[in-house]
Amino acid sequence: MNYVPTRITADGRDGYPVEAGRYRLIAARACPWANRAIIVRRLLGLEGAISMGLTGPTHDQRSWTFDLDPGGVDPVLGYERLQQAYFARFPDYPRGITVPAIVDETDGKLVTNDFAQMTLDLSLEWTAFHREGAPELYPEHLRDEMDVVMKRVFTEVNNGVYRCGFAGSQESYEAAYDRLFVALDWLEERLAGRRFLMGESITEADVRLFTTLARFDPVYHGHFKCNRQKLSEMPVLWAYARDLFQTPGFGDTTDFAQIKKHYYVVHSDINPTQIVPKGPDLAGWLTPHHREELGGRPFGDGTPPGPPLPAEVVPASGAALAA
Amino acid sequence: MNYVPTRITADGRDGYPVEAGRYRLIAARACPWANRAIIVRRLLGLEGAISMGLTGPTHDQRSWTFDLDPGGVDPVLGYERLQQAYFARFPDYPRGITVPAIVDETDGKLVTNDFAQMTLDLSLEWTAFHREGAPELYPEHLRDEMDVVMKRVFTEVNNGVYRCGFAGSQESYEAAYDRLFVALDWLEERLAGRRFLMGESITEADVRLFTTLARFDPVYHGHFKCNRQKLSEMPVLWAYARDLFQTPGFGDTTDFAQIKKHYYVVHSDINPTQIVPKGPDLAGWLTPHHREELGGRPFGDGTPPGPPLPAEVVPASGAALAA
Repeated sequence: MNYVPTRITADGRDGYPVEAGRYRLIAARACPWANRAIIVRRLLGLEGAISMGLTGPTHDQRSWTFDLDPGGVDPVLGYERLQQAYFARFPDYPRGITVPAIVDETDGKLVTNDFAQMTLDLSLEWTAFHREGAPELYPEHLRDEMDVVMKRVFTEVNNGVYRCGFAGSQESYEAAYDRLFVALDWLEERLAGRRFLMGESITEADVRLFTTLARFDPVYHGHFKCNRQKLSEMPVLWAYARDLFQTPGFGDTTDFAQIKKHYYVVHSDINPTQIVPKGPDLAGWLTPHHREELGGRPFGDGTPPGPPLPAEVVPASGAALAA
Repeated sequence: MNYVPTRITADGRDGYPVEAGRYRLIAARACPWANRAIIVRRLLGLEGAISMGLTGPTHDQRSWTFDLDPGGVDPVLGYERLQQAYFARFPDYPRGITVPAIVDETDGKLVTNDFAQMTLDLSLEWTAFHREGAPELYPEHLRDEMDVVMKRVFTEVNNGVYRCGFAGSQESYEAAYDRLFVALDWLEERLAGRRFLMGESITEADVRLFTTLARFDPVYHGHFKCNRQKLSEMPVLWAYARDLFQTPGFGDTTDFAQIKKHYYVVHSDINPTQIVPKGPDLAGWLTPHHREELGGRPFGDGTPPGPPLPAEVVPASGAALAA
């Protein structure tokens, strides 16, 4: 087990019961794994129940810092570095300090950083605090098929791009590249006839795929050499990604400037100049996707979330795109 | 003056008269400056008059080697390294050992490495050995306008991509990026209504632009961060580049495998892993370009060259593209 397995549940069996105003989600907009939690929290309307702190896009060897906050300190936890929450609970914590993380505001200790379980628990354990009209992101009747799809997306796409970028040899890179594009071709085919990964409505599976697709052209294509095509050259996936991007909760939680800065600055081993590419032109994200012609009900029996909290608006993202 | 200014001329005023069978062009298929000379030699049908030796795509600090030849030795000059020809003429040659270079086969000494003058001299001084139907690549009545166009292409595009890739700071990179795309937008507009840069026929100006465009998506887009768009996303320039690519002398002298290997292996300061991207998919180069609808006579009053010499065929380039 690589992550802290503690769970926040309705029955509080790990000592952390679901409770409004007690927990703080720490995320980085740059990070695809953290971006999942940001999206799900917003889709479900949990902003009032679970507060959110955001680290800056870059970090050093001691990991993520609150350098975006006044004084460089998270206003709720009083920490400069996320590792303080980890060490508060595990003084000798030996693994990476990762986002997303949920911290108990009452004692400043990390509860969990298990990103995969975290979003499922937001869907299944936090129902008492869901907004009216919150979508069902992990519906019971789809779960068996979803687990298979999400596993393939995880190993082949979410992790697949990293396998390309961090390959230690030409041979392992080429194998990783082939494996990635086999999976993208599969998705291109799967999504040709259905609006979302599981059919007519958005699920957790779409959230998990989206955060990788949003980073594909700005980062993975060049920085990780995932360059058979750009996402914008895979017509079905590109329309699917735009459909999600233009849905409340997806594009409005995506910060392309932070995303690019994170990868190109932090990975100085593959980008020693740390220069961040000015491209690509992102205006295409707002163009018509025509996926509504496939039918579907994005939020099922529910409704889209309203606008983001003023404090959580991504600065100038819409303006930057429209420019 | 950064290059050896000696010229091979019809009147032999620098001691090097035009003469069939005396000179050897040393080129690297990877290098855009050398690729110009390979294209012009072939368009003019000078293969029988000027022999050609090819170095491998990569080189170390002592520059280009004949590692593709049997025994790693150029079969005519007997050299392992191009620098031997430079040092034979200038024992203390202080500047870079560059391709293209023309070497006198009679004494193994470098004659010139002045890439810009070299191709013009092939057009204007070597007329006695041009093939029947050779095009006029530097026609007198267009020369004033051509010089202006070629200067802008040189400073803004041919060199512009390097200015992006070798920028020493974020600020200088961003300035270089803006400057490059201003020029590409200008070309997109200029070529919208005319088939070639100077009008209805191919000239030296097209040769000079082509060798940069051919390298754009495979190298400059990712490696040099020239990533506002891919060439394949600039519709006019992309159709223009394909038109040239599909013209004898252009695509058949382009070796994408060597091009990618050169940049990604030699520039270990910006690509420390030296891993060469497997993409992009190059099949698009052979798709219809529809530029013939603009009219034009690619070779003017002349004709296209025949097939390349068997020894000079780019290995598997067509097959690789069609795959």
